[in-house]
Amino acid sequence: MKSIGILGSTGSIGTQTLDVIDALPGKFYIKYLTSNQNTELLGEQALKYKPDTVCIANEEKRDDLEIILAGTNINITSGRNALLEAAGRNDVNLVMNGLVGAIGMEPTIEAVKAGVDVALSNKESMVMAGGIINELLKKHSGNLFPVDSEHSAIWQCLTGEKNDQVKCIILTGSGGPFRTKPKEEFSLITREEALQHPNWDMGNKITIDSATMMNKGLEVIEAHWLFNLNADQIDIVVHPQSIIHSMVEFVDGSVKAQLGVPDMKLPIQYALTYPDHYSTDWENLDLTAIGRLTFEKPDFEKFPCIQLAYDALEKGGTFPVVLNVANDEVVSAFLNDHIPFIQIPQLIAEALDQHEFIENPDLETISEISQWTTNYIHEQITTFA
Amino acid sequence: MKSIGILGSTGSIGTQTLDVIDALPGKFYIKYLTSNQNTELLGEQALKYKPDTVCIANEEKRDDLEIILAGTNINITSGRNALLEAAGRNDVNLVMNGLVGAIGMEPTIEAVKAGVDVALSNKESMVMAGGIINELLKKHSGNLFPVDSEHSAIWQCLTGEKNDQVKCIILTGSGGPFRTKPKEEFSLITREEALQHPNWDMGNKITIDSATMMNKGLEVIEAHWLFNLNADQIDIVVHPQSIIHSMVEFVDGSVKAQLGVPDMKLPIQYALTYPDHYSTDWENLDLTAIGRLTFEKPDFEKFPCIQLAYDALEKGGTFPVVLNVANDEVVSAFLNDHIPFIQIPQLIAEALDQHEFIENPDLETISEISQWTTNYIHEQITTFA
Repeated sequence: MKSIGILGSTGSIGTQTLDVIDALPGKFYIKYLTSNQNTELLGEQALKYKPDTVCIANEEKRDDLEIILAGTNINITSGRNALLEAAGRNDVNLVMNGLVGAIGMEPTIEAVKAGVDVALSNKESMVMAGGIINELLKKHSGNLFPVDSEHSAIWQCLTGEKNDQVKCIILTGSGGPFRTKPKEEFSLITREEALQHPNWDMGNKITIDSATMMNKGLEVIEAHWLFNLNADQIDIVVHPQSIIHSMVEFVDGSVKAQLGVPDMKLPIQYALTYPDHYSTDWENLDLTAIGRLTFEKPDFEKFPCIQLAYDALEKGGTFPVVLNVANDEVVSAFLNDHIPFIQIPQLIAEALDQHEFIENPDLETISEISQWTTNYIHEQITTFA
Repeated sequence: MKSIGILGSTGSIGTQTLDVIDALPGKFYIKYLTSNQNTELLGEQALKYKPDTVCIANEEKRDDLEIILAGTNINITSGRNALLEAAGRNDVNLVMNGLVGAIGMEPTIEAVKAGVDVALSNKESMVMAGGIINELLKKHSGNLFPVDSEHSAIWQCLTGEKNDQVKCIILTGSGGPFRTKPKEEFSLITREEALQHPNWDMGNKITIDSATMMNKGLEVIEAHWLFNLNADQIDIVVHPQSIIHSMVEFVDGSVKAQLGVPDMKLPIQYALTYPDHYSTDWENLDLTAIGRLTFEKPDFEKFPCIQLAYDALEKGGTFPVVLNVANDEVVSAFLNDHIPFIQIPQLIAEALDQHEFIENPDLETISEISQWTTNYIHEQITTFA
């Protein structure tokens, strides 16, 4: 049996990870679970999976959790440092990092330093610190397994192949809920509209990233670090049905694609069971029932976040850090009805322009520039509001 | 450099194999070439590639070839036995078997016995003697590399994967030129219409097989032997654009597909360069230019050859032999305007019904039953004509 720690067990990726573990009895057991502040669900999960430790990141919620778990011998920890301590445990086989946003970066680094395998749903880790994480991976014994459906697809397509025979990769994206909406109507987009993803059941933050197509931009940067490819080797194709999850084109023109129903449980499961495919009862793909798959070029004008991400990757250094943190902050502001949808790329572009560029930031610099970006966006939003 | 022998160098697969070799200078050299009776092209190829030997299967054409190659030191051989002798040479690294129909089976067996790798375009070899060939492969040192685009796709999708984690494979087929033609009009189909394949540039025999969809049926049987799968693990999906060349579904629901422009040079090249992808200038796939891929269930009623093939696989023994030889003969008769299109499955079904079943035929029995089938079909055609 493989021992698992889950960072963010009450979120979308965390709960689906537990669904996968339920579907594969006897294959995994849980060592620890963490949640930001959902004590009720975390308590319920703890009683069911009996980890040795649960961690609640929000200190204020600790008391609630203690009540739920009274009479058990489950160790309760709380606070950001306790979260990092859990992430850095070396007595698990694999950590699932299901955290959302920039706050997921440090836990990834702790887990990599501990030498354990990391199933990485938190793409922001690679966007902000891909170079640093890759250096750490060389020094330590663990591996990084992508959980994003696109990167899982690329990873699966590369199985048994040589990376230097890859011509390019093609990341597919649904195009989000506004693929066919005219640009003139973007100023009227509401929070509710933006949260209606056509295919995928995901958390709020990533659903908005999908609506702005920043999600695809972040994935381009993540792919750069995961697969050692230049920006011009990473293409985006809009594929509204989300059946082909991504593709690899080899130098001879042969293309491999990974397909499936749009269900995050599949890439989650593969990251847990790699290099094996285990039999489960998830819905199967039926291409004749679907009938057709379509493909379009992405609209860089309607979705300026894509170009912002490509530019940030080209410029390197602190640009992807600012891109990512600014995006976290403006998406949060949009979800709280503080800014309109069209302000999202504008504020990110401003933060990128205004920041003081540093070419090879270390973790301390990344932390400082993150703080600067957060402050900058907050100021702009206050000005705007 | 890899040394290559080409069986059927003047045919569709043979000439495209030479195109691939031209595109990869310094990687391959030609040891021998064979042709049935196209002396002019065979002579031209011999003067260009300077093999040590050329073989013309039709003895009557030998003199013509001697005139063309007078003054060279290229050895000329002729006749069926000389062809088999070439196929059985153990001083090549790889044999490309581009022969068409049942006559390609014995050369495959000779090459496998010689312990060399065989790039197999001649699917009829596996349809007729897949079990025998697999046994020989276990005893000898060579490998079998599929050249059919569908089987090449499956093979590529299985790279680095475990065969026992395959749930099923999905062979795609264009549906041929009569996919949308109403069944009532099948009696009027002409030779010229049947030779108009929508996507692939192939030889006449395989183009007719594609029009009857027997091609897909033969591929099901070939896949059974190549990948050790049961009939119920081999599905057919009609995909008119011929971009997805086939797919593998694993037990966890993950599906891998291999895609490309419909160009036989790609699977030919992969069989020559396996396990590597070499950079070449063939046309690249552009999914956004293609726009959409569609999928349908095959119509077993309009195309009875598919069911005939599945049944022959289930029944085993001599059934696939009769299926294949009868198909060779009726396709030839159709191409010579001796029978109408709709007679093709009818005559094959009759031959299957009438033949004397033998469960585990050896090569001698396969030869006898092949002769019986040829005679039977000829008699029926004479009766019919």
